[in-house]
Amino acid sequence: MKENEKLKVYPLSDIEYLKIHGRTTKCLSPLTVFWTGGGIELNVKGSELWVEVEVDYDIYEPWISVVINSAPVSRQMLISGRYWVCLFRGMSEGIVKNLRIIRDVQAMSADPSCSLKIHAVKFDGEFLPVEERLYKFEFIGDSITSGEGIIGAKVEDDWISMWFSAVYNYTAMTAAAFNAEYRVISQSGWGVFTSWDNNPYCNIPKYYDKVCGLLNGEKNEALGAFEENDFESWQPDVVVVNLGTNDMGAFNSPEWRDEATGESHKQRLNDDGTFNEEDIKAFENAVEGFLVKLRKHNRTANIVWVYGMLGSIIMPAIYRAVDNYKKNSGDIKVSVFQLPNTTDEAVGSRNHPGRLSHERAAKELIGYIKEVLVNR
Amino acid sequence: MKENEKLKVYPLSDIEYLKIHGRTTKCLSPLTVFWTGGGIELNVKGSELWVEVEVDYDIYEPWISVVINSAPVSRQMLISGRYWVCLFRGMSEGIVKNLRIIRDVQAMSADPSCSLKIHAVKFDGEFLPVEERLYKFEFIGDSITSGEGIIGAKVEDDWISMWFSAVYNYTAMTAAAFNAEYRVISQSGWGVFTSWDNNPYCNIPKYYDKVCGLLNGEKNEALGAFEENDFESWQPDVVVVNLGTNDMGAFNSPEWRDEATGESHKQRLNDDGTFNEEDIKAFENAVEGFLVKLRKHNRTANIVWVYGMLGSIIMPAIYRAVDNYKKNSGDIKVSVFQLPNTTDEAVGSRNHPGRLSHERAAKELIGYIKEVLVNR
Amino acid sequence: MKENEKLKVYPLSDIEYLKIHGRTTKCLSPLTVFWTGGGIELNVKGSELWVEVEVDYDIYEPWISVVINSAPVSRQMLISGRYWVCLFRGMSEGIVKNLRIIRDVQAMSADPSCSLKIHAVKFDGEFLPVEERLYKFEFIGDSITSGEGIIGAKVEDDWISMWFSAVYNYTAMTAAAFNAEYRVISQSGWGVFTSWDNNPYCNIPKYYDKVCGLLNGEKNEALGAFEENDFESWQPDVVVVNLGTNDMGAFNSPEWRDEATGESHKQRLNDDGTFNEEDIKAFENAVEGFLVKLRKHNRTANIVWVYGMLGSIIMPAIYRAVDNYKKNSGDIKVSVFQLPNTTDEAVGSRNHPGRLSHERAAKELIGYIKEVLVNR
Amino acid sequence: MKENEKLKVYPLSDIEYLKIHGRTTKCLSPLTVFWTGGGIELNVKGSELWVEVEVDYDIYEPWISVVINSAPVSRQMLISGRYWVCLFRGMSEGIVKNLRIIRDVQAMSADPSCSLKIHAVKFDGEFLPVEERLYKFEFIGDSITSGEGIIGAKVEDDWISMWFSAVYNYTAMTAAAFNAEYRVISQSGWGVFTSWDNNPYCNIPKYYDKVCGLLNGEKNEALGAFEENDFESWQPDVVVVNLGTNDMGAFNSPEWRDEATGESHKQRLNDDGTFNEEDIKAFENAVEGFLVKLRKHNRTANIVWVYGMLGSIIMPAIYRAVDNYKKNSGDIKVSVFQLPNTTDEAVGSRNHPGRLSHERAAKELIGYIKEVLVNR
Repeated sequence: MKENEKLKVYPLSDIEYLKIHGRTTKCLSPLTVFWTGGGIELNVKGSELWVEVEVDYDIYEPWISVVINSAPVSRQMLISGRYWVCLFRGMSEGIVKNLRIIRDVQAMSADPSCSLKIHAVKFDGEFLPVEERLYKFEFIGDSITSGEGIIGAKVEDDWISMWFSAVYNYTAMTAAAFNAEYRVISQSGWGVFTSWDNNPYCNIPKYYDKVCGLLNGEKNEALGAFEENDFESWQPDVVVVNLGTNDMGAFNSPEWRDEATGESHKQRLNDDGTFNEEDIKAFENAVEGFLVKLRKHNRTANIVWVYGMLGSIIMPAIYRAVDNYKKNSGDIKVSVFQLPNTTDEAVGSRNHPGRLSHERAAKELIGYIKEVLVNR
Repeated sequence: MKENEKLKVYPLSDIEYLKIHGRTTKCLSPLTVFWTGGGIELNVKGSELWVEVEVDYDIYEPWISVVINSAPVSRQMLISGRYWVCLFRGMSEGIVKNLRIIRDVQAMSADPSCSLKIHAVKFDGEFLPVEERLYKFEFIGDSITSGEGIIGAKVEDDWISMWFSAVYNYTAMTAAAFNAEYRVISQSGWGVFTSWDNNPYCNIPKYYDKVCGLLNGEKNEALGAFEENDFESWQPDVVVVNLGTNDMGAFNSPEWRDEATGESHKQRLNDDGTFNEEDIKAFENAVEGFLVKLRKHNRTANIVWVYGMLGSIIMPAIYRAVDNYKKNSGDIKVSVFQLPNTTDEAVGSRNHPGRLSHERAAKELIGYIKEVLVNR
Repeated sequence: MKENEKLKVYPLSDIEYLKIHGRTTKCLSPLTVFWTGGGIELNVKGSELWVEVEVDYDIYEPWISVVINSAPVSRQMLISGRYWVCLFRGMSEGIVKNLRIIRDVQAMSADPSCSLKIHAVKFDGEFLPVEERLYKFEFIGDSITSGEGIIGAKVEDDWISMWFSAVYNYTAMTAAAFNAEYRVISQSGWGVFTSWDNNPYCNIPKYYDKVCGLLNGEKNEALGAFEENDFESWQPDVVVVNLGTNDMGAFNSPEWRDEATGESHKQRLNDDGTFNEEDIKAFENAVEGFLVKLRKHNRTANIVWVYGMLGSIIMPAIYRAVDNYKKNSGDIKVSVFQLPNTTDEAVGSRNHPGRLSHERAAKELIGYIKEVLVNR
Repeated sequence: MKENEKLKVYPLSDIEYLKIHGRTTKCLSPLTVFWTGGGIELNVKGSELWVEVEVDYDIYEPWISVVINSAPVSRQMLISGRYWVCLFRGMSEGIVKNLRIIRDVQAMSADPSCSLKIHAVKFDGEFLPVEERLYKFEFIGDSITSGEGIIGAKVEDDWISMWFSAVYNYTAMTAAAFNAEYRVISQSGWGVFTSWDNNPYCNIPKYYDKVCGLLNGEKNEALGAFEENDFESWQPDVVVVNLGTNDMGAFNSPEWRDEATGESHKQRLNDDGTFNEEDIKAFENAVEGFLVKLRKHNRTANIVWVYGMLGSIIMPAIYRAVDNYKKNSGDIKVSVFQLPNTTDEAVGSRNHPGRLSHERAAKELIGYIKEVLVNR
């Protein structure tokens, strides 16, 4: 193999026109990519480009997708170590390409060792400015929003990184339709009040204020995951919250026992299958409380609570909670929107929405956000 | 990162149930994967699997896709060197997976250094037999059959490996519909008589008898590329020939000058835009001659000459040639079938058929092959 | 033309296996077809069949569609008069056909002269039993449910019978998916509380108890339109209510002045665009009140309130009202489901949902009713 | 019912801006609509319009579709007699509508009594000029081109008028895509050389010169069906010939005995299933002969021979014949194009192409004609 002798190494901090996606710290040496959909974007005029990653994990390895001029061209597992990955080579020197490296896998709360860092770029050309996008969108959710099940055969049932996708995800498709920059805050199995298995600590609101607060361990602390997030620096136009599916699941799951306190937790159904009044109220309070917190940090955003890709049973409680929030706050830039349910032919792996289901959800959501942005 | 201590290395030659795809030599130490769509297939019960590749090139690097239980899960560039690639990890030990590693890029006649070899597998489980498929299909073609342009944005125009795909290709889709094992013999720019730019040496029939005769150089000779192909060992049920598009292009391209002989070559049009009689006859003779060769090596196959994904102007000549062949040979298992043209919305990169165009072509071809297999 | 001498006239009352669709009286001499989607169904073994209709109107003529073996074969305007219409001829005598004659246009409250009656059938064969269907569905709605705008070019804006369809309507498609018999109670412009132009008398609940109470005039009285409906004789499994679109419209329309009382009526918005609290509450009370009435008459039906095909702004109020109803009544067989909004390419004539929009709505609604019928 | 007193009767011959579609005579008192797809077109500013038809038949009644502003609004059987049919009423007086009345059923060679005449229009407004279309297309074919099987359930097998459609037909769709005026010359069961059942008199070329020469009887003679067609007055830009399907069928059908001469006719297959050389040559001669005739009458048209919607077995012979014709004539504006085969889900009634199959065929044909019109 012939060496390309024009390649030069650029630490991220030396790249003038670096665009960073996803919530993270200010550190560029290296940059930690915490969340799915996060990564870097560059406009580059040159023929060959590599990126230096540093990867670690005990259980769940990260994956990345590479997107060139908005087309996904590769998707690969990143094994542990610090090494260079070639993103393209042999392209025309004089032509500008838009390049994105996207983390395809959610932040992994269950593996404190899991991390993906980017140190530098090796390149033989010139960096150019990345166009500022029209809008900023934030998506908050669970496994659906993490893109669990978009990849893989229907039979797959292992809970592993391989089945996740940030690219063929309703989040990415919706943002692309508006030429919006976007961020994703999501975690499989989690809810707004409780996880699918009644663990009350696994809720997104609890950690929303931190850079990536749902992670654990000293390593993540050192990476800045538990710092306060700088909301001022990135105020979204639209916040989409897609939570409720796991809160609903909790009503159908056994109790969860907290080994630390000895307490058990369980969202209860009545004998006739209706919700226990107190427990559904706790869920509603969590929705309302989260809206208060979201508004505090996102002062002007249109907030849309979406739900329905895996059934819509808990929807009345969501409507009640949002109603209450609006009545109590006077905030009118909040609404609820039902996403289409996942039909049989649109199921992906792990009984989760597949790519077709994400496409359908995006289509409906795009229509709704259009109205929201025009009318309110 | 925790080491998986159960992993054991298996040279390919030690794997009892190894299934090899694509035309190659008998050598397993290492296995050379010459053609697009080629690679290895395994049925494996275990949690983690790596493959050891050895890769070289001067210009055009190979890419692979990994397909698990028939679903594509990753696709990546292979840089030069000898190293291990992890295909999956963290899966349930006790569940059998079907695994395929597929070369996504055509044999590269323009880069004698380009090679992809597989040495070994590192695995923590048990190998199981791969089910014998119902049919064997062979596809012979040019850039269309090589899947050039399936990947990448419409604006892309560089001629590089990145835009090729064996997976979202009409060949793979057609074979899958019949549960057929398949092989691809193809080269961008080449024809049955001449290349798109009138180079008469760039035709597939000339090299069809060899393992991968269109390659060049000592390295490929050492790999066995120029050995006689063992047709006896793999007799297809259907041979699909998709050639003619570049032969047509030659009529619209300038002459090609052979520096070795000083001769120039050019397929000519008359002033009224019709074909020069002698030149179109030469094309027809090449079609007929190739059919004679194909029948010699594939004694019982149904041979289908397909054409039309990038226009169908030369079709009458194809029909004439196939007619002549049938009349002269008495062979009735040969026919012609027009594939749907690539409409604007189905164009991929490099003005080639995109994924949607391949899907449409596959749909029509599947229908036609069904009839062929039933009726004849 | 040759006469078919085997034809015999059968008054409807003489036909043993006559199946009547749509809410109507017990009178068969003649049968009045009041509602869209209503009509007669026959299983017939014979070659030629005519139906004798009697039609009147001052402004809005009725239309019918003829459906043979579930395929629509004709659709025509019925001009005034009493006459015979040929539904089929020249068919094989010995083969049984399923035949439906369907009123394609809603009951016309604005034209007291409009009526469609069926007197008799002229036929040359044998009547056979019509299979009892698995389910009974009732649909209650406005212009959307009346199928206004399914027929005709996008530019059409006249309010005339020609643009209505009962056949390419989400009601018919949804019922067909479940092999359900169905009835439709609907009126363009009407709501659950008020019409689109703030006329408080134009609401469906007010007239729900009568056979076809929203009609006017002595002629309709004589036809039995104002008789109490016999709910006992037809208890649906599912009641779909698609009301709210015109109630929402009222908030954006000028006041309506009641010439009789001199009173004006207007659903008001606040200056910030939110709903006037009293007025939205009146809407919610109307929803709740209608649910009470629906449950009284349909004792075991699953009631599904659907909404969203022309925007979903008033949805929170629907959720609140249904919540209240459920809390106050303890009735758990009531729910809310959002239908997909009509996208640009799915708009029909008169800015109403076109056939494509009805197909999409049916697809989602079918999925939801499946769950409802299984789970609850 | 209120009478519309503004209605006035206009004999066709009194309407200045009358546009006639389909091949017919010059007679307007009345106008005979011989062919499927034929009829009249008007641009009208007014509220209500009726048409006076005169209809006769012994066996096969005609049907019409009404198309307003390019949208089909009704479709109905026309029973025998002379009477008025209302096409629209209640529309805005001041708005111009484009109106087409289209014969939905082919000329019926098997029923010499079958005729459809138009005498007059009754209207309350003003006639306006009909825009001249960009192109003129002629379609020549068999049952496929007659639209047999587009209407009706899959189970239908009676040969009756009801299953025919000129509207959801590839002919109409193709013409519409080019804003082309079009004519259709077609007959179910007929071929270019012989009918499906080996009757050598049932071929289109034999009657192509006459207005509607394939009809029979004195009545049709009186209507002018057997007059020479005036080709000068209507020179098409494109002639699409879709023949060959029945010629192929003849090879698989029993012989046909000519009672007049005692002779039997049969297109033969050899024992190995290939075509008898003499018989396939007779077919090819018929194709070539028809091309000579077509060119004589259509001096500048691009002629496209299409085939394949119900299989493509005889295609090589079509290519040979067209080749021969081109070689012998030097005519280069003739080509062959394969239409997509009818897949299972696209079958209509009577095992014929359904609406979906016609849509697919139109899509491919539109693409091809675009190239033909641009390049040649």
